[in-house]
Amino acid sequence: MRFNLLPAAPKADLKLYMSKPAAKQEQTANPLNALSALLDSDMAAVNAKIIEQMDSPVKLIPQLASYLIAAGGKRVRPLLTLATTAMYDGEMTRAHRLAASVEFIHTATLLHDDVVDESQQRRGQDAANLVFGNQASVLVGDFLFSRAFQLMTEDGSLEVLRILSDASAIIAQGEVMQLTTANNLNTTMDEYIEVIKAKTAALFAAACEVGPVIAGADTNAAKAMAEYGMNMGIAFQIADDTLDYMAQREQLGKTVGDDFREGKMTAPVLFALQNASAEDKDFWTRTLSNRDINECDFDHARTLIEQGGIIRQCFDLAYTYRDKALEALNQAPPCEIRDLLKPLTDYTINRKS
Amino acid sequence: MRFNLLPAAPKADLKLYMSKPAAKQEQTANPLNALSALLDSDMAAVNAKIIEQMDSPVKLIPQLASYLIAAGGKRVRPLLTLATTAMYDGEMTRAHRLAASVEFIHTATLLHDDVVDESQQRRGQDAANLVFGNQASVLVGDFLFSRAFQLMTEDGSLEVLRILSDASAIIAQGEVMQLTTANNLNTTMDEYIEVIKAKTAALFAAACEVGPVIAGADTNAAKAMAEYGMNMGIAFQIADDTLDYMAQREQLGKTVGDDFREGKMTAPVLFALQNASAEDKDFWTRTLSNRDINECDFDHARTLIEQGGIIRQCFDLAYTYRDKALEALNQAPPCEIRDLLKPLTDYTINRKS
Repeated sequence: MRFNLLPAAPKADLKLYMSKPAAKQEQTANPLNALSALLDSDMAAVNAKIIEQMDSPVKLIPQLASYLIAAGGKRVRPLLTLATTAMYDGEMTRAHRLAASVEFIHTATLLHDDVVDESQQRRGQDAANLVFGNQASVLVGDFLFSRAFQLMTEDGSLEVLRILSDASAIIAQGEVMQLTTANNLNTTMDEYIEVIKAKTAALFAAACEVGPVIAGADTNAAKAMAEYGMNMGIAFQIADDTLDYMAQREQLGKTVGDDFREGKMTAPVLFALQNASAEDKDFWTRTLSNRDINECDFDHARTLIEQGGIIRQCFDLAYTYRDKALEALNQAPPCEIRDLLKPLTDYTINRKS
Repeated sequence: MRFNLLPAAPKADLKLYMSKPAAKQEQTANPLNALSALLDSDMAAVNAKIIEQMDSPVKLIPQLASYLIAAGGKRVRPLLTLATTAMYDGEMTRAHRLAASVEFIHTATLLHDDVVDESQQRRGQDAANLVFGNQASVLVGDFLFSRAFQLMTEDGSLEVLRILSDASAIIAQGEVMQLTTANNLNTTMDEYIEVIKAKTAALFAAACEVGPVIAGADTNAAKAMAEYGMNMGIAFQIADDTLDYMAQREQLGKTVGDDFREGKMTAPVLFALQNASAEDKDFWTRTLSNRDINECDFDHARTLIEQGGIIRQCFDLAYTYRDKALEALNQAPPCEIRDLLKPLTDYTINRKS
């Protein structure tokens, strides 16, 4: 995936890297690659903007930021901003700046999340907090967050500033709400959806809404794209939370079981609790609520979830949001990008990583 | 100090609290109180705005935010925004909102600083990270930071957004730079000034610049007020760093020696190093650079600093910036507020807490 890796190296290297064409087959097999290929020069411009804007005379900042950003990540959010701007014929140079801004907000929340969760791994490498320390992770997160607002201010749209400052406040609220629901077995499915809507889907929604807004499209278009991003984000997070209990992810060398160890109340656990026997209920109480976890407990949790047909339940729930997302997407003008966004919506759910 | 304490209680209580007049003598003895008394109803409006805006359906957010905000703090930064707006005849309702925004940025950095520094105490009580945990402190900091940008967006001035987003990025850079200079005995005085300019003075400068900007004053006025805030902030931080080695602060029940234990390279240490004997140099290397600190070391450090005439050197340095601040202040229109800002500038240096 060409656009996934952003070299920490100087711009000359980046240019070389960007000019390498992806194999045709690779592009079409993966809807993320296909859309990125279509928006190739725009993604390159966003990546260049990201490199330019994460620079600072305080060298630890680009070091730490590039450590995380160069490690990949799918760049789904900036891609969504580019795609929705292009669909509504917006000015792409504005989209480049704002897509970088969206990615900076995302990166800042990742840095802070990893400190909050005491993460060990991120994007297949040691988490930044382990390499650079919690202190630097918190502060570089703050820097990237500030940079995001500098970029928006440079763009000059108060409507975009409203959308993204609202999203930022909602993300933080969602993260705090997740903290307060952790280890609480009485958490409802509605509360869980509220948490993931805030902590994840709000930024997807904002990333999509920015497009029609800078294109000057009518408010219905902005509303439809926000709706598309919101539902896609919810579907994505349900799938992600489910993958944390699935062997497939482990086979790709990714960590699993983080949510279990932290006692996060996610969809698979909430479904498992709905029909749990007294014995199973005791198991979940001991592990998730009391955080008294033995070596074999995660395997047992996974068995309960896999054998209880819960994976299916979780994905069915994700698909209901996927369907809502596609319904909203249908309000966009028919075009090649819209056709590519459809399989992308499915891909964000079905990816195994 | 009436305006210092913001009750976590509902608005009815706040109103009662706000209506209690300060004793005349108390007002005039302390220039901070005198200026606050003059801007009494405006400070009340700012405090009401702060309470209103730190609210959230996620109750841990107002709980944690009010824990810190209710503990006091001098509210110097919002007061400066009110004062400079009033001096240039700006619209005070806009100043209320933006002063709250400035205070939120300040509070967010305090929450993150305390996590970064593993602080034990803040404003005479246990630091929020100890009471609510690092996780909540990081996330509520993010929330307040986002709220600050929501408030600025609501105000709608792109110039104010530029000033405060620039300041936020500079603060984060200053904090990271402080991390990288910690424990490094080769840190120069220039580097130290650069750190405190960024981590502290930039927000003072921004708080002051906002006033003439929303008043529509000319760019020279904005520049002069930014200059005033910047130099006042530098003077304030030099004094604060010096107080961390002074017995007076300890007598007021405040902690001292935090910077020493963290190996921060501040003015008193840098002056002490300039003329240190070989033996003293070894002492500073062991304690600050190698962080090998015994129980009596802080007392010894304090003795070296107090007996070496270094307190005087530090305050003399602070006074040079105070003088620059007053020079810039003189460019403001002559008025009662300007007359009160003069002693306030001295007060921020000479306060013993």
